[in-house]
Amino acid sequence: MNDVAARAGVSLKTVSRVVNGEPGVLPATAERVSRAIADLGFRRNDSARQLRTGRAAGIGLILEDVSDPFYSVLTRAVEQVVRDNDCLLLTGSCDDDPDREQELAMALCERRVDGLVMVPAATDHSYLAHEIRAGVPVVFVDRPPINLAADVVLADNVGGARDGVRHLINNGHRRIAYLGDDLAIFTARERLTGYRSALAGAGIPQDESLVVMGRAEPVAVRAALDRLLSQPNAATALFCGNNRLTTVVLRELAGRVDRPALVGFDDFELADLISPGLTVVAQDPAGLGRVAATLLFDRLAGLSDAPRRVVLPTVLIPRGSGEAPPPATF
Amino acid sequence: MNDVAARAGVSLKTVSRVVNGEPGVLPATAERVSRAIADLGFRRNDSARQLRTGRAAGIGLILEDVSDPFYSVLTRAVEQVVRDNDCLLLTGSCDDDPDREQELAMALCERRVDGLVMVPAATDHSYLAHEIRAGVPVVFVDRPPINLAADVVLADNVGGARDGVRHLINNGHRRIAYLGDDLAIFTARERLTGYRSALAGAGIPQDESLVVMGRAEPVAVRAALDRLLSQPNAATALFCGNNRLTTVVLRELAGRVDRPALVGFDDFELADLISPGLTVVAQDPAGLGRVAATLLFDRLAGLSDAPRRVVLPTVLIPRGSGEAPPPATF
Repeated sequence: MNDVAARAGVSLKTVSRVVNGEPGVLPATAERVSRAIADLGFRRNDSARQLRTGRAAGIGLILEDVSDPFYSVLTRAVEQVVRDNDCLLLTGSCDDDPDREQELAMALCERRVDGLVMVPAATDHSYLAHEIRAGVPVVFVDRPPINLAADVVLADNVGGARDGVRHLINNGHRRIAYLGDDLAIFTARERLTGYRSALAGAGIPQDESLVVMGRAEPVAVRAALDRLLSQPNAATALFCGNNRLTTVVLRELAGRVDRPALVGFDDFELADLISPGLTVVAQDPAGLGRVAATLLFDRLAGLSDAPRRVVLPTVLIPRGSGEAPPPATF
Repeated sequence: MNDVAARAGVSLKTVSRVVNGEPGVLPATAERVSRAIADLGFRRNDSARQLRTGRAAGIGLILEDVSDPFYSVLTRAVEQVVRDNDCLLLTGSCDDDPDREQELAMALCERRVDGLVMVPAATDHSYLAHEIRAGVPVVFVDRPPINLAADVVLADNVGGARDGVRHLINNGHRRIAYLGDDLAIFTARERLTGYRSALAGAGIPQDESLVVMGRAEPVAVRAALDRLLSQPNAATALFCGNNRLTTVVLRELAGRVDRPALVGFDDFELADLISPGLTVVAQDPAGLGRVAATLLFDRLAGLSDAPRRVVLPTVLIPRGSGEAPPPATF
């Protein structure tokens, strides 16, 4: 009753009048009370499952695809923080579809989640401004929002890609191809920037024929590899922009004799057991999820400073595939 | 308004009186109306996001750990069906903790999900009988419920394990060890039954020193392998009961010269790229999730026959590790 009164901005007596159908309440006030009741819900009085502030306990998580190991580990980390705060997690995969992202976000807000963690797909997040003003904090993770000031937690995509490409350069390569995800995706652009930065830092001229951006489709990847590895002045090394591309590339390279050196962005469960071991730039999906969810609960607890941008470091893990030198030339 | 009236069992006029704070409504009736308003929620009038019956649209999914690839793929498949039905998914990992399972299930029911898909951890599910009677269908997946009649969708654990062990027998092995998960877990017991059945079918006597059940902890697995592979009359082949055990075993075997033949239950992303390729008994996590969620929506749509037990087949995929013969003896 106290929560309803506070939310509707009326006295306890007014709430009591509305609930008991007593006279003496203006229709607009009565509707505000009914709405507050609906907003708060008639849950059993189970304080352990509610935030200490008395709010209903649900956090929404929107990401690209929960079956991708990167996202499933991130989901698990978010869930752990949500659970530590006695809340429930509502989840949805949006498949990088901007409309689906907005549909999911609105559906979750209509279900009155207390906050949202989002790996965004849309190109305009101004639609969330109203929800944020209404008191639903949103923390973006993996990619920043567009046209919206909000918290975001990112991996060091530029630095990580630069480290990976520099590692190939340090092992003697100068013809290094970059296979990256669709340029519409923030992380793909950032990692391409890191690739270019490493080449520039070593005084290696950019060769656009060595840059291939697109989805991790086996047929397209095979065609790209055929060209990259057989063209005059062929690539002697590959840098793969994410785990899905690396998986497809590994499978396509398995049957070839002209295997280039390879570094992939994102680590894998069995990366140390394949031969040669896969050298990767590992980001920390559990850390991304944990930091994002923790920041969300800080916001729910009242943290009200300017939107934050947190960048988590990546780690280069050499395992063999990235240390092979280029073939000797004569 | 119509939905509120129907749910509260009152006339439209009564709903209007309560919402507008007009007199002439009994307190108990007013409370019923308020409760119906809260139950239905003040959602925007977006019928596409509600079940055709007008129910609020939320499905709960409880499983062991969403970061396990088996469960993340299952989750994705459930989510797809939930989405095709214009519903939202609420998820929780229970870490095989019976108390956590019940806590999650009750929290989801309090949040008025329309139905539940569960990979159970508890040893008694009678606590769900009340929810099922109250109209919340529950479909179990991967493991059956205990002390509760409910739908369940399973993999053919016995048949799959039998196929895998028979494959090792057909390749000349008679000293085949079984490394399985904790016997408290249904699938671990079923797969052990399959192992025993294959041995019995080939007239190979059971040797309990070759059966090791427990969690996928590297130290324990290493000790078990040391014993199994060095004891007099050592094991020449291993059958691993799930993906986590297989991963640990692969890593422990990587440094050894006395590598036994190996078949694992559950497929892996890179199983074809390690050397030798990993022979597996693949179950179909996406199929399990899809069939379970589809059955749940059939129940929501009114399907009312007796609880069903659906068993999905497994597939043996030979890739090299399971085809090595035992060392020659003389």
